[in-house]
Amino acid sequence: MSAMKIIIVGLGLIGGSIAKALKQNTPHTVLGMDTDEDSLLDACSCGAIDGKASLEDLKSADMVYLCVYPGAALDFAREHGPKLKEGAVLTDTCGIKSAICSGMEKLKGTGKYTFVGGHPMAGKERSGFSASDPSIFVGASYIIVPESAPEWAVSLVEEQAVSMGFGRIVRTDPGHHDQMIAFTSQVPHALACAYVSSPRCQDHQGFSAGSYRDVSRVANINHVLWSRLFLDNREALTSELDELVNNLKAIRDAVDSGDEAGLRELLRKAGDIKRQAG
Amino acid sequence: MSAMKIIIVGLGLIGGSIAKALKQNTPHTVLGMDTDEDSLLDACSCGAIDGKASLEDLKSADMVYLCVYPGAALDFAREHGPKLKEGAVLTDTCGIKSAICSGMEKLKGTGKYTFVGGHPMAGKERSGFSASDPSIFVGASYIIVPESAPEWAVSLVEEQAVSMGFGRIVRTDPGHHDQMIAFTSQVPHALACAYVSSPRCQDHQGFSAGSYRDVSRVANINHVLWSRLFLDNREALTSELDELVNNLKAIRDAVDSGDEAGLRELLRKAGDIKRQAG
Repeated sequence: MSAMKIIIVGLGLIGGSIAKALKQNTPHTVLGMDTDEDSLLDACSCGAIDGKASLEDLKSADMVYLCVYPGAALDFAREHGPKLKEGAVLTDTCGIKSAICSGMEKLKGTGKYTFVGGHPMAGKERSGFSASDPSIFVGASYIIVPESAPEWAVSLVEEQAVSMGFGRIVRTDPGHHDQMIAFTSQVPHALACAYVSSPRCQDHQGFSAGSYRDVSRVANINHVLWSRLFLDNREALTSELDELVNNLKAIRDAVDSGDEAGLRELLRKAGDIKRQAG
Repeated sequence: MSAMKIIIVGLGLIGGSIAKALKQNTPHTVLGMDTDEDSLLDACSCGAIDGKASLEDLKSADMVYLCVYPGAALDFAREHGPKLKEGAVLTDTCGIKSAICSGMEKLKGTGKYTFVGGHPMAGKERSGFSASDPSIFVGASYIIVPESAPEWAVSLVEEQAVSMGFGRIVRTDPGHHDQMIAFTSQVPHALACAYVSSPRCQDHQGFSAGSYRDVSRVANINHVLWSRLFLDNREALTSELDELVNNLKAIRDAVDSGDEAGLRELLRKAGDIKRQAG
């Protein structure tokens, strides 16, 4: 693999982790951009990046990772996309894909780069460069949304993901991505927040064990980021939340009416699904 | 600590784990009773119990742990309680306490034993003696519901819990126990079952990470046991499920109406609660 010049835009949890993973596992030169000078200094001093990327560096970059909020990712492409060289691959790491891909599609022709949508399925409850850790990627899924991107560009994003330690690469379209993510990631976050909002939560100590811990874990949420992600996936998320509420009500009504046979059947079916789906 | 004769009734996940923990950490003689001869044989051959308890053994037992379903626990006390000696402590491990304690209260006077309600807050997704493992108790909470039991009897149950490795002993009344358990344990189980019932669950592979895994984990449920536990705690559970559904709807409606400020506020409050409550 020949060494490339890669720029990471946004050195938060994901951008910082990508920088560290690329530095550890590839020969590429990794440069960083961030509006926060402290994050840049921290990233330089610990060797997560080779240095700060200048606007000149953008002109010669082979790959650019957008590791910022969806709106900022589109703003960056609008402002700096025209500087990127022909053959440069611009990719993002946003948790929603329809809004990003349609926004990027509108910018097509404003620059010579190739855009490939991406979503590394990894995270933790803390955010910021200080929480970044390339081990969160090990064995995780990297979802790629190629749309009209040519195979060589998609492969380039895939190769880096494999180098970073991702265990599974999935290709899909923006709509399917967003529908699946509403279920696998957004609903659990909404759920955790709804759950801890019970007045009983304050007194759980001594009465709780693994199931409380697991459901409530992600309630320690970055509320600005997740509000944005929820709103950018409104349709899929509201319909998935409606599905959940209906399923909860079915259990609630079976309990309330003392319908033991019906309740057993609901729980048995759920157990079967979980054992089958993993 | 002088050696006692302790009988474990029901050698499933909890009974088997208690037997193993007592054998590992105390000098007591531990005998088992189970309607399933295979579990008894397995428990004997691996040293989890010193032997099978006969009806004669019940007459001389110092402690009896009821590790069976709530209905079977009351049936056992009704049928065999009169055989227990004066000063014997009968305790249970059921996940609901109002139904058990009121049932035991009605049996008062039919035997000379002392009843102390208990609930070891530990478990796993598998059940049966083969899944039993005393390490599930280490650091967990043991809830004791003393009601009218004298201090010496409550202390005796406490001492065994400490010997088994429990990290925290909590004393409370049946109503508070059941309300807290509805929140900390029953709602997460109902939730996991409602969650995996989404049509998206079958296709989650490649699109899921930690938050899917954590919310769905306990959907691999013993549907017969949990249906009983849910129905025996109907009032507290339905009101806690109503609370959750209302909180979910608030998030859903904020997303649906594009109310970013309102959504941020809901998530911010939830994050504050989680960071404070742990």
